[in-house]
Amino acid sequence: MKPVNVGLLGLGTVGAGVVNLLTENRDEIVRRAGRDIHITRAAVRNPDKARECAVDGMQIGSDCQVIVDDPEIDVVLELIGGDGLAFDLTMAAIERGKHVITANKHLIALHGNAIFAAAERNNVVVSFEAAVAGGIPIIKAMRESLAANRIEWVAGIINGTGNFILTQMRFEGVSFEYALADAQRRGFAEADPTFDIEGIDAAHKLAIIGSIAFGIPLSFERVYTEGIRYLASADIAYAARLGYRIKPLGIAKRTPEGVELRVHPTLVPEKALLASVEGEKNAVMVYGDAVGPTVYYGAGAGAGPTASAVVADLTDTIRVLSTDPSGRVPHLAFQPDQISDAPVLDRADFECGHYLRVQVADQTGVMAAMTRVLADLEIGIDAILQEDPPTTEDDAHVIVVTKSAREGRVLEAIARIEAFDFARKSLVHIRVAHFED
Amino acid sequence: MKPVNVGLLGLGTVGAGVVNLLTENRDEIVRRAGRDIHITRAAVRNPDKARECAVDGMQIGSDCQVIVDDPEIDVVLELIGGDGLAFDLTMAAIERGKHVITANKHLIALHGNAIFAAAERNNVVVSFEAAVAGGIPIIKAMRESLAANRIEWVAGIINGTGNFILTQMRFEGVSFEYALADAQRRGFAEADPTFDIEGIDAAHKLAIIGSIAFGIPLSFERVYTEGIRYLASADIAYAARLGYRIKPLGIAKRTPEGVELRVHPTLVPEKALLASVEGEKNAVMVYGDAVGPTVYYGAGAGAGPTASAVVADLTDTIRVLSTDPSGRVPHLAFQPDQISDAPVLDRADFECGHYLRVQVADQTGVMAAMTRVLADLEIGIDAILQEDPPTTEDDAHVIVVTKSAREGRVLEAIARIEAFDFARKSLVHIRVAHFED
Repeated sequence: MKPVNVGLLGLGTVGAGVVNLLTENRDEIVRRAGRDIHITRAAVRNPDKARECAVDGMQIGSDCQVIVDDPEIDVVLELIGGDGLAFDLTMAAIERGKHVITANKHLIALHGNAIFAAAERNNVVVSFEAAVAGGIPIIKAMRESLAANRIEWVAGIINGTGNFILTQMRFEGVSFEYALADAQRRGFAEADPTFDIEGIDAAHKLAIIGSIAFGIPLSFERVYTEGIRYLASADIAYAARLGYRIKPLGIAKRTPEGVELRVHPTLVPEKALLASVEGEKNAVMVYGDAVGPTVYYGAGAGAGPTASAVVADLTDTIRVLSTDPSGRVPHLAFQPDQISDAPVLDRADFECGHYLRVQVADQTGVMAAMTRVLADLEIGIDAILQEDPPTTEDDAHVIVVTKSAREGRVLEAIARIEAFDFARKSLVHIRVAHFED
Repeated sequence: MKPVNVGLLGLGTVGAGVVNLLTENRDEIVRRAGRDIHITRAAVRNPDKARECAVDGMQIGSDCQVIVDDPEIDVVLELIGGDGLAFDLTMAAIERGKHVITANKHLIALHGNAIFAAAERNNVVVSFEAAVAGGIPIIKAMRESLAANRIEWVAGIINGTGNFILTQMRFEGVSFEYALADAQRRGFAEADPTFDIEGIDAAHKLAIIGSIAFGIPLSFERVYTEGIRYLASADIAYAARLGYRIKPLGIAKRTPEGVELRVHPTLVPEKALLASVEGEKNAVMVYGDAVGPTVYYGAGAGAGPTASAVVADLTDTIRVLSTDPSGRVPHLAFQPDQISDAPVLDRADFECGHYLRVQVADQTGVMAAMTRVLADLEIGIDAILQEDPPTTEDDAHVIVVTKSAREGRVLEAIARIEAFDFARKSLVHIRVAHFED
């Protein structure tokens, strides 16, 4: 059969990874896909720059439009990133009847609703397995393998940079800043790490997960997002003393009142499977009503894992070329006319456990006052710890882990505790999650 | 669109699970699949028996042939089990142009090559996601999501009964017989547990995994298989002392000389992800050269998880109905004309670590003699432990964990050690595996 012609928008780390993978495993890939894959053109910012891959047989230029317009190209790989040029080119490729594959979570989270609508009008497919959890096939698992399930919740470590930083803080006892610099040295964090450490990257991915899990439109702007920048080593150590590890989690959960979509650092019991996902690794846990809990683990980033997901999308797209549009897997798991919105809960309505740590003057009555506040608000207590903080001599750290409680009440408790004279600084608040595995 | 008509062969636990799932989650499933699913007929041994599911709208009879012959039926679910009648009916359905879905690992492992050849001749698809690791989508992950990878090895806990028994032996300190009876009481083991405890069930699944991973024909008869029946609580305890857990593993591994296909209890380091897969749960780890290690975890059996996989196959099959055969995923991952055989290694050529435990007379010179044997055969030692055995007072247990060594040499070492006068009984030999995760 005639080879499939592919055009590349962008030939940076991921683009070069795709080209290298298609070269090195060509035989293995063609034996599976049944058809050869030719990358005929690539558009790059600077065509004279040296590349991390062989480029023979490929026309390299700086004009992206040429690729979108080339009638010989069947599939366009958008590997530019961001949501500006990438969006325009993706839409242009779709309008010209080309299938698109992207690793760009930012693009899909913000513009996916428009992109998928355009793709359906033009009878093409936009694939994005690499956009969530890199090499882990979580999109396919949720869209196809769990198609018979009502998905109740998804909880995932979906930002490798954040997980690496928190793992280093725990193993090495270092500060957030030190661990971040270490991640940057090892290539696990960008020079500008804002998206990773502020939770924005994870929120992009969680928006996609939530939509596929529950059949709602992509709702990035409704994801509650907290980063890991303000986590102190002391809290990681206290959590460990209480039998927990702190992991950067994205959580999508169905409740009778609507869905929770939230990204924040989270205490998970050290015996939980997610607790043993260390370093830059990712893992996503999905609870379906028929199958129960399932977990998908692997590398969430890097040239090889990302290329693995992009080329898997490419072999799927080859199959799509000979498929009637009615027989395709819907972009967001549910048939387009079956997507329906649901209320996304405000943080005040989240229900989970809460870790509260307050620095107090070491005087009598503190514990009585604090536990009184919690009792008045009917917030149950799971554990209490009092510790000498690492820095001052006169103060104490009081740590309370609550039972599951509505966050609105916990915020009220925090306000009341912070108002006490004995409270030295604003209270540290980290959520706690218990997931059946 | 017109509903898809499905005929059921068998309406036991799994069949009822499928019917119940299609009833309870009908809305969710149709919203994804885009087409309704009707089970129009079921064939059962005794049509008068009460069923664990609603059967309205379904014609129930005892004649399987009626289902295979019904021109209104698009898809046949083979849920009878075994490799006799199930094989005949599967082939008959294929010959009549029907797509088939099965959860029957026994059938696929033994007759898959013939079944898939017949399916390709007749332009139909035979799906079997539920046959390996129950509700975990390992077939789809390996066939589609990892299609760009050269798969180097797969290691999985693919028999839930075995994992449950070994977990109970470790947690409760009970004997194999006690744990087996417990598993039977809880419904995790059959009345006749032979297939589970002798490793045959896992070998069926491993044959399928090996074929899909490496593009070789199904080779059940070439899987080296050891059960867990002869494991003693003492070895589970000694392994724990040395930092290991014993797990029932299926391992498929590429080597320069051929492929290893083996099922046996295995020591895995307690920090390894597979070590934390407890109870009746399954997990499969796949190492692809581009993606690195990935792990898939969940329930490997039970009505709900199995039905989840069967109905996922059904939604895939609905999509196949409108697909050109050239665009289908090949049954064994590689295009039929691209499957090529490879040598399957004999156990003498396996390479891994080995746990050796020998009961010896408590006399001087024992350790020197044993370590001399290993040194002569150039087998490195990782750890040595000497213990008082639980039952006798005069003897000692000597446990050696070797570094990675070719099994032929280790078998020679075992023969020499067993020949010593001080060796009381035949030596216990369990393999050790270290997998990067």
